[in-house]
Amino acid sequence: MSTSAISHQSNLDAALFRLTLDRQGAQPLQQQLAEELRGLIRTGRHAGARLPASRTLAAELSVSRMTVTTAYDQLTAEGYLVARRGAGTYVAADLPHLAPPAPRRAPPLAAPAPYLPFQPGVPDQRLFPHRLWARHLERAWRHPPPALLARADPFGWGPLRVAISEHLAAWRGLEAAPDQIVITGGAWDAFDLISQQVALRGGAIAVEDPGWPTLHRLLTRRGVTPHPVRIDESGFDPAACPAGTAAAVVTPSRHYPTGRAMPLSRRLQVLHWAEAEGALVVEDDYDSEFRYQGQPLPSLAGLDGLRRTIYMGSFSKLLSPALRIGYLVLPETLVGAVREDLAVTGVRASLLPQPALAEFMASGDFATHLRRMRRVYARRQGHLLAALEAAGAGAALALKPDPSGMHLVLSLCDGQSDAAIAAGAEARGIGPRALSSHALLPEAPQGLILGYAAFEPEELDAAARVLAEVLAQG
Amino acid sequence: MSTSAISHQSNLDAALFRLTLDRQGAQPLQQQLAEELRGLIRTGRHAGARLPASRTLAAELSVSRMTVTTAYDQLTAEGYLVARRGAGTYVAADLPHLAPPAPRRAPPLAAPAPYLPFQPGVPDQRLFPHRLWARHLERAWRHPPPALLARADPFGWGPLRVAISEHLAAWRGLEAAPDQIVITGGAWDAFDLISQQVALRGGAIAVEDPGWPTLHRLLTRRGVTPHPVRIDESGFDPAACPAGTAAAVVTPSRHYPTGRAMPLSRRLQVLHWAEAEGALVVEDDYDSEFRYQGQPLPSLAGLDGLRRTIYMGSFSKLLSPALRIGYLVLPETLVGAVREDLAVTGVRASLLPQPALAEFMASGDFATHLRRMRRVYARRQGHLLAALEAAGAGAALALKPDPSGMHLVLSLCDGQSDAAIAAGAEARGIGPRALSSHALLPEAPQGLILGYAAFEPEELDAAARVLAEVLAQG
Repeated sequence: MSTSAISHQSNLDAALFRLTLDRQGAQPLQQQLAEELRGLIRTGRHAGARLPASRTLAAELSVSRMTVTTAYDQLTAEGYLVARRGAGTYVAADLPHLAPPAPRRAPPLAAPAPYLPFQPGVPDQRLFPHRLWARHLERAWRHPPPALLARADPFGWGPLRVAISEHLAAWRGLEAAPDQIVITGGAWDAFDLISQQVALRGGAIAVEDPGWPTLHRLLTRRGVTPHPVRIDESGFDPAACPAGTAAAVVTPSRHYPTGRAMPLSRRLQVLHWAEAEGALVVEDDYDSEFRYQGQPLPSLAGLDGLRRTIYMGSFSKLLSPALRIGYLVLPETLVGAVREDLAVTGVRASLLPQPALAEFMASGDFATHLRRMRRVYARRQGHLLAALEAAGAGAALALKPDPSGMHLVLSLCDGQSDAAIAAGAEARGIGPRALSSHALLPEAPQGLILGYAAFEPEELDAAARVLAEVLAQG
Repeated sequence: MSTSAISHQSNLDAALFRLTLDRQGAQPLQQQLAEELRGLIRTGRHAGARLPASRTLAAELSVSRMTVTTAYDQLTAEGYLVARRGAGTYVAADLPHLAPPAPRRAPPLAAPAPYLPFQPGVPDQRLFPHRLWARHLERAWRHPPPALLARADPFGWGPLRVAISEHLAAWRGLEAAPDQIVITGGAWDAFDLISQQVALRGGAIAVEDPGWPTLHRLLTRRGVTPHPVRIDESGFDPAACPAGTAAAVVTPSRHYPTGRAMPLSRRLQVLHWAEAEGALVVEDDYDSEFRYQGQPLPSLAGLDGLRRTIYMGSFSKLLSPALRIGYLVLPETLVGAVREDLAVTGVRASLLPQPALAEFMASGDFATHLRRMRRVYARRQGHLLAALEAAGAGAALALKPDPSGMHLVLSLCDGQSDAAIAAGAEARGIGPRALSSHALLPEAPQGLILGYAAFEPEELDAAARVLAEVLAQG
């Protein structure tokens, strides 16, 4: 026995002599023992040392022999100990020293922050029929049919795709078969699938400017460079796209964030451009169910007959952003390519909400909710206009009623910086967005995006007063 | 009026004369009228024509005047019609011709296919406590607390991260604070976040060979090239990694698919390599809760003290692949970088299952379920071994019990092709996987991966008999 082996042996014997187990503790004794031994071995000061016979250690610790053999077996399986037939149990000799993990004080988790007044793009989740929805969830999963437990279709739950197909025909003038509909895990997922199709074609992807800043970031993150195209009075202008553009992402029903609807003549121009260039058009139809006069304007994809247009819908604004559920409607020619891509990554959207949402839609509860929210949001828009007027912010600034949407855009006086005002407003606890922060091109238009959908009249009153003060100072 | 304008006018008048509405139909009359007019205008044969006064058309169609004005207003908003003050309503003159969408017969949606016997990596969802789970879901969402309706933390629901932290301490020997835990939307989402961190560091990502084929595809899809490293008896060998490797994805608890556990000495070698190279180690701990002798082996991340190891856990195998819920445990030094990345893409995992899962775990129902499934799967493994023996497939082929996991790997006789046998088996309705299809390197080992977890004893008996026949023919 070498000197170091002797010292390792006496180290171990001394350490075991000092070892105590907590008989009142919640952890079983064999687990406590294994943990103590593991800690000792990890110090590196006992390599190669022989452990006492299980009977001996059991007597010393006043535990059953079973407790000791279970702990020895566990550590042997883990590799800390080596059992030599007929010669006893040893600490593994070949373990390099490993420092114990540094103790760390974990910061407490921050509670989720509420949305600031004027935050755009958020529905009022307080008005969501939670009890009804919870009941649909419970019913869908209490006795799930075999199809829900089988190999999931990467395109999503069939009955939900049928319900969406019916919704699109009724609300969006779009005749799409369920087999053209892919359920996605929200915008990130949808644009990931779209980016892949654009990458396969090569060429740039045109985006509206100003536009949705998250879109620029999502595309860039996926290695696709967005090419910003400045919008005019009619919205996106395909004539301004560079040659070789493979796809354009547009918001024809209601340009984000300015709220302009694309006139029919421009819509047709976009479709003719796409046809001539062999390009795809992605219609991001983010909130057009909320139209307050007449029916929602029919979709561009419906006008196109889903020839070159991918239609993108979401439940984030209609129900809740927490669901992370959206969908794409694909031209028939793309169905195969997207199926191939999903075969690479597997199913992506959670199946959990899908049967409940299918029932929620098929039962009519969804349409009832949409109609109700349409009335509520129309009233809130009117309330916001009146509140800004009353606070003295409306008169000086051109702010017109909008026949649709969940936010208004407030123009600013010459020389005012929307970024400075938005920052000042946030410091006062309200969250309007600077229009210029939605543009990539220089000489961005200035304005404030005021979301009103998620806020009660009193919240809008208070926020309008704060905004008027910030505007007066800016 | 030009000749073409005259013909357009008479075209329109004739078409309107033939127009009929369905008074018994479900669709309101104004909607029917709008749809008919839209169809007429889209033929391009009525551009510039004047529509009858609303009173006139109402009388002709025997509908109220309101029906006609509503339809006219809708089409004017859509851009099909133009209202000229005091001069009546006209079909827009500047609309290019647009062919109507080609009618299309949609194929019926295929019903989801059940899993074929021997499909690996799937839990038996029939044994999942559905009623209990449905009740947790219903309770979580019936009266959601304000925090569930607030701005979601991109790292996921706090109480779920606390529950996972406690699960890891108890089952996986891993002390991780909730703020190091990110809830992901499954493996695709997790490897997307990991790929981004690897891409930021530059350099290759090493993967085990044979390994998980989906992993190769996921990384390639994200633009990261996997570098396959052939495993030896101890599993992944870091000495075989090329210089400049930025990360390695390993399955130390149970190598996928061979089932080997990485001994402690190799684990320490991997951690020392990572330290010396400044590389990340990703521990994919896909099913190690299912250990049938003693406690599960502690995680590599726990041994490392989460210095350089990202731990990756999943609920797909523990509960259901339909949930699409997994998590990453990050070294403290990566928390900020992943938060930045998630700020780009926004929240990705659905919030819907998260509060229910947190309650399911905190209540102890989850641990009860795991312990039960551990007993069931251990019995099924024993049953499969006996069934293969009884069917005459066990004797010739070395097939040993495995102390853990959800599948066994069957060696083949010399000269047999696992791919040919797997194909033959699939034609007979059973789904073993060819081991060689899990390798990227040449001279791949041959074998059959037999999943047993999701199948009842009678299903395993029948599948073993079919497999024995296929093997006898192969």
